[in-house]
Amino acid sequence: MRFLVGHVQGQPGVFAIVEEAATNLTALMPEIGTDLMALTRDPELVTKAAGLVGQGPQTQVADITPALPIAHPGTIICLGLNYVEHIREGGYEIPGYPALFMRGRNSIMPSGAPMVRPACSETLDYEAELMLIVGEGGRHIPEDAALEHVFGYTTFNDGSVREYQRKTHQWTPGKNFDATGAVGPIVVTPDELPEGAKGLKIESRVGNEILQSSNTENMIWGAAKTLSIISEYTTLEPGDLIALGTPPGVGHAKKPGPRWLRPGEVIEVEIEGIGTCANPVVDETAMAARKAAE
Amino acid sequence: MRFLVGHVQGQPGVFAIVEEAATNLTALMPEIGTDLMALTRDPELVTKAAGLVGQGPQTQVADITPALPIAHPGTIICLGLNYVEHIREGGYEIPGYPALFMRGRNSIMPSGAPMVRPACSETLDYEAELMLIVGEGGRHIPEDAALEHVFGYTTFNDGSVREYQRKTHQWTPGKNFDATGAVGPIVVTPDELPEGAKGLKIESRVGNEILQSSNTENMIWGAAKTLSIISEYTTLEPGDLIALGTPPGVGHAKKPGPRWLRPGEVIEVEIEGIGTCANPVVDETAMAARKAAE
Repeated sequence: MRFLVGHVQGQPGVFAIVEEAATNLTALMPEIGTDLMALTRDPELVTKAAGLVGQGPQTQVADITPALPIAHPGTIICLGLNYVEHIREGGYEIPGYPALFMRGRNSIMPSGAPMVRPACSETLDYEAELMLIVGEGGRHIPEDAALEHVFGYTTFNDGSVREYQRKTHQWTPGKNFDATGAVGPIVVTPDELPEGAKGLKIESRVGNEILQSSNTENMIWGAAKTLSIISEYTTLEPGDLIALGTPPGVGHAKKPGPRWLRPGEVIEVEIEGIGTCANPVVDETAMAARKAAE
Repeated sequence: MRFLVGHVQGQPGVFAIVEEAATNLTALMPEIGTDLMALTRDPELVTKAAGLVGQGPQTQVADITPALPIAHPGTIICLGLNYVEHIREGGYEIPGYPALFMRGRNSIMPSGAPMVRPACSETLDYEAELMLIVGEGGRHIPEDAALEHVFGYTTFNDGSVREYQRKTHQWTPGKNFDATGAVGPIVVTPDELPEGAKGLKIESRVGNEILQSSNTENMIWGAAKTLSIISEYTTLEPGDLIALGTPPGVGHAKKPGPRWLRPGEVIEVEIEGIGTCANPVVDETAMAARKAAE
């Protein structure tokens, strides 16, 4: 199935998508609420939802304003260095274990929402990433059973303020500016994609300018291995988000460069078979002034 | 005020403590729920609670089993290197900006609960820390107004699995093993402590063996500066937890050493004027076997 969480005329809901038609699942089964959390917790709800696709009045996908697929994820874990060429462009050694960091809830926003370039730094950068949403949780998940714990896959733009990412060896501040990490809009269940969502073209661009272009086949740690590694130390829970790292071509490493995101641009991340996450870049100061004037 | 969140005969509640007597605030004002979250959000509730101290049947503090002061903190941010001598013992340079990392909800547990040494590594280490709980949230909080955003202070043991902390330059895995970070039990409001909780003796020990002994005066970044720095990149919210780093004397740097925590030991963290966080160290494998046998 393909899910889209969003609003239609101010009403929030979970929609099932078939091409351009959207079935309002929340209207048909209110027990799922208005994001994917309940569905990640209960496979029977997903089965029921699948049986309802096409029923009820259909909405056009274009009329849905995306919201976060999971409104309040328990944990957001990101894998930092997962494509060999990206590791080299950042000046890092290829590690034997993934570089893992965390993002907080306030750092993420849906596709379509402003990506905010902070007042304190112009070094806002894009990172196209495959993101998985955890279904059944667990600890000590073996790699060969790990894909059973994936609820679905989506697109992610791991927006990073490089100057703050590298203030110390810990990347947290640069990865946690408010409204810099874009999630969604489409969440695709694993049965509709190649195993582990491998072999999918992944790209980021501004207009016609292609910034990153790679394939999820090039990830060092795939979905299964990553789930297994993370669950060695923490109990994963339904609705947790795991971002799987970015391919080469990020702005700070562009030559000539750097190529930072600028207010007025729309940054897009597209993954083949999943969807496109598109966010307008806005300046924090200008946005605050506009809000104050309203 | 001094708060203690916990259970008495299986009933959860928020208690106000005066010496050994505890007033069950949850029984007197059920609108606060069973942890401190509602109180962090509404100063009027705190004022009302203060007026109720001593009313109703009194419970002995010793009869209360501690629970987490905030059951579901939105964000847990930790400052890694904040005491000069600890930075030197770890082989790090003294930074011009704090090393910040995050912990997830599953990595923390209350005082009294087992601190779990994982099956995969014996390198479990203690870190005595001052922790603050955010009251009023905000972004871009100036340093000179920051202490108004502190709801209270508590004790924290930032239990770390060193082998996994240093698998890469990102500390996340070693700081996020399930049930390794101990919070509480007593939360003290700022009016009962020196400004910024400075000048307080901070110690960790196992039995008579004093492992760390320092003073919060020695922190490079105090509570106000830390709040200001973090709120430059993220919007802080009521109930967020911020840990302020550990003094020298951690186990991995002990000479002769290392001095890892061993199952059967009880690790205590005490901060003058706040309280003592005490947790028995248990082996993950042994705990799992015991649970399976139950």
